Amino acid sequence: MARDERGVTAQSEDFAAWYNEVVFKAGLVDRGPAKGTMVIRPYGYRLWELLQSELDRRIKDTGHENAYFPLLIPESYLGREAEHVEGFSPELAVVTHAGGKMLEEPLVVRPTSETIIGEMMAKWISSHRDLPLLLNQWANVVRWELRPRMFLRTTEFLWQEGHTAHAEEAAARRETMLALDIYHEVARELAAMPVVPGEKTPGERFAGAVATYTIEGMMRDGRALQSGTSHYMGTNFASAFDIRYTGEADREELCHTTSWGMSTRMIGGIVMTHGDDKGLVFPPRLAPHQVVIVPITRGGNVAVEDAADDLARRLRSAGVRARVDARPQLTPGFKYNEWEMRGVPIRLELGPRDLEAGTVMMVRRLGDGKQAVPIDSLPETMPGVLDDFQAFLLARATAFRDSHTRTVDNWEDFADAVSTGWGLALHCGNSTCEEEIKSLTAATPRCVPLGGEPETGVCVRCGAASAYGKRVIFGRAY
Amino acid sequence: MARDERGVTAQSEDFAAWYNEVVFKAGLVDRGPAKGTMVIRPYGYRLWELLQSELDRRIKDTGHENAYFPLLIPESYLGREAEHVEGFSPELAVVTHAGGKMLEEPLVVRPTSETIIGEMMAKWISSHRDLPLLLNQWANVVRWELRPRMFLRTTEFLWQEGHTAHAEEAAARRETMLALDIYHEVARELAAMPVVPGEKTPGERFAGAVATYTIEGMMRDGRALQSGTSHYMGTNFASAFDIRYTGEADREELCHTTSWGMSTRMIGGIVMTHGDDKGLVFPPRLAPHQVVIVPITRGGNVAVEDAADDLARRLRSAGVRARVDARPQLTPGFKYNEWEMRGVPIRLELGPRDLEAGTVMMVRRLGDGKQAVPIDSLPETMPGVLDDFQAFLLARATAFRDSHTRTVDNWEDFADAVSTGWGLALHCGNSTCEEEIKSLTAATPRCVPLGGEPETGVCVRCGAASAYGKRVIFGRAY
Repeated sequence: MARDERGVTAQSEDFAAWYNEVVFKAGLVDRGPAKGTMVIRPYGYRLWELLQSELDRRIKDTGHENAYFPLLIPESYLGREAEHVEGFSPELAVVTHAGGKMLEEPLVVRPTSETIIGEMMAKWISSHRDLPLLLNQWANVVRWELRPRMFLRTTEFLWQEGHTAHAEEAAARRETMLALDIYHEVARELAAMPVVPGEKTPGERFAGAVATYTIEGMMRDGRALQSGTSHYMGTNFASAFDIRYTGEADREELCHTTSWGMSTRMIGGIVMTHGDDKGLVFPPRLAPHQVVIVPITRGGNVAVEDAADDLARRLRSAGVRARVDARPQLTPGFKYNEWEMRGVPIRLELGPRDLEAGTVMMVRRLGDGKQAVPIDSLPETMPGVLDDFQAFLLARATAFRDSHTRTVDNWEDFADAVSTGWGLALHCGNSTCEEEIKSLTAATPRCVPLGGEPETGVCVRCGAASAYGKRVIFGRAY
Repeated sequence: MARDERGVTAQSEDFAAWYNEVVFKAGLVDRGPAKGTMVIRPYGYRLWELLQSELDRRIKDTGHENAYFPLLIPESYLGREAEHVEGFSPELAVVTHAGGKMLEEPLVVRPTSETIIGEMMAKWISSHRDLPLLLNQWANVVRWELRPRMFLRTTEFLWQEGHTAHAEEAAARRETMLALDIYHEVARELAAMPVVPGEKTPGERFAGAVATYTIEGMMRDGRALQSGTSHYMGTNFASAFDIRYTGEADREELCHTTSWGMSTRMIGGIVMTHGDDKGLVFPPRLAPHQVVIVPITRGGNVAVEDAADDLARRLRSAGVRARVDARPQLTPGFKYNEWEMRGVPIRLELGPRDLEAGTVMMVRRLGDGKQAVPIDSLPETMPGVLDDFQAFLLARATAFRDSHTRTVDNWEDFADAVSTGWGLALHCGNSTCEEEIKSLTAATPRCVPLGGEPETGVCVRCGAASAYGKRVIFGRAY
């Protein structure tokens, strides 16, 4: 790969081009043959595995159990919940033939699993003793995408989908918020994404939900990325699939259900939250390689190579994901550029003179310049260096988000705010008004932030009385 | 669930009925709505996760990287390797419509991923420096099953599929055997299945492979279960997908590829290797619950319940997967039966008198009777108790396998041996003769065991000169 092939378009010049170039050139992804599908390459998949293991642990720690439900769902299942089928029909991939024959009833490739899990819940739940039923599934889902973008909108993606059933509305609503809290923590503490948790307005709700909650992240082009959602379904799916329990008084009652999901879309979110003109910047807690050691050995230097291997081993023993880039055919300078483009948080350069002095040159992917540090101290200090870098990324992203979010009270300011970031505005809650705003500015209501202060007044667009009791975040979105 | 609902058919009476009853009643699985599909319930899925994490670690430790390839494959891809398409065509599920339109080219739901991974390998490999390329994928696959059986033959199943490319035949053949070794170790050390590793005869090879290796387990009805396979593809897929590299001398060469897979079928293998008339018996290293504590508290006894919880906590701190069954509405006797049926290796019964004496009654799922043991010693001794039980299961299964395997040199003995187990016989290697044996006895050549002694002579059926240079294992198979 020649130097110029690795150069990427500047973010300021064309953010979409920048994104597309880095995800391919950094080896995160490749295009699948079927429209809108992606191959997640090892470097991207490792990031997903690290996110997955942390998210899975939190899901289990809160009492949920993993299970697996079939990929193929009878087409008729989707029709049982009217809003659900309307929402998903245009995106379905349909199996009509199997085993050499035409099927009597077509099967859809799951776009989400509420229906098939609802059917099983109805079978498994009979008494209040069977509740709450707390399930989670790691799976692939398929939604036909007309305008695919790697990780952000792909015909197939990977996710977890939690599905729970409860006796009481209050318990189901608590569950909905618990899942949102987990997503908030994972996004903030692991991905260093300062997402805003909030409730979706009715027009942006999941198909079939009573309430939808979201965490919204701000990308470096000022757009919003919905990064995880949690839905309270009321008794909609329980009615459609007959999910009932016998209560204490021997009366049959409908369950209250929830569902919630986080997906490989998060990889795109990490890329667009932290990346810069040199390429990716990965938060240490999810970086496949936290530290790359580049030995500087013109024509081979066994002592330097051994010292690099030894340092990598000691760092790994200290719990650091460290690797040596020993490729003999490439120059150190080439490697520096490549690992910068691939977003490795910390680079260690080790040459014969460094080795003599007992030091390495430590270079952070962002922030401070080069720094000579004693080799022997690194296994002890590196975890702290990585924590600091993690905190630095969160602070940087938070500052970016805050400097691109404006409280706006008139239409001019609103239009200006959503052209480069988010506008915090009062809105009437009317869907016609929402549509008008969208057609004029491409901005949509991202959420009503949970943390927002109570406030009422008039709609920023139409001047009618405001809804929601607080300001709404508007922005253009992925 | 009343007592009689939990009773299961005796293995000796009807093994197939026994299997079907235990996998459903123990809560491992449920039936999906589409023909031949299954729902893997939390108790079954947890077993799979434990197997998966151990297998995944071994795959990574040997230098492979995980990636993810699309579910939907253009139909034309399968046609590029002639034997491959012939082998899989009858089992394909085909997506013909998506996004509300008929597709120009139908997409098959992957039955295995050689073709789509081959296409990507061709793109990613150019120089010998790109080799070996060592990939693995955890995924769902779909093969239309006319006679489905839970875990053993289902329309959709979960597996890992390794796919590697190498410059030299020798390296690819070593890789094929490395994967087989990993499967052998996982089956033997974790699942306590004394599988026999060997090579498949040409008639039993994977569609498109040059050589197929297998681990074959013996189930408690004497039948064989192919429990993992590893294939050397030669240059067949490299030719079909143009997977080439430029060698040292600047010459373009075809790669040698391998693939290998282990699936949720292993769950069925564990059930049928260890289970008995009371139900499941799980090997401790894969058991979702290794120890269940049943507090004996008529009408509630806080001291006993607290002691049970405390013991469970201390066992968990010692790395033991322990849980308390505190369900107030059920009797201890009911719980004993249920956890026996569900295969928990060790049960601890704790009543007021035991607590006074500072002991619990320890009951192994198989083998020795009840035994009073000091509560305080358990966190220290339990790992050893579990190891002993694991070793006991492997020894028991090995003795069963050996007592149901006979070296046979004439047709009568052969027919007798394969009616209750395996026959070790010399065979001519002729496919017509294989077919004849199958139609007369339902037995097929399971493998030519790697460990078999060199031996030649005449075919047990037709009397022609023997092939393979050693005896072949014949048996009826799942």
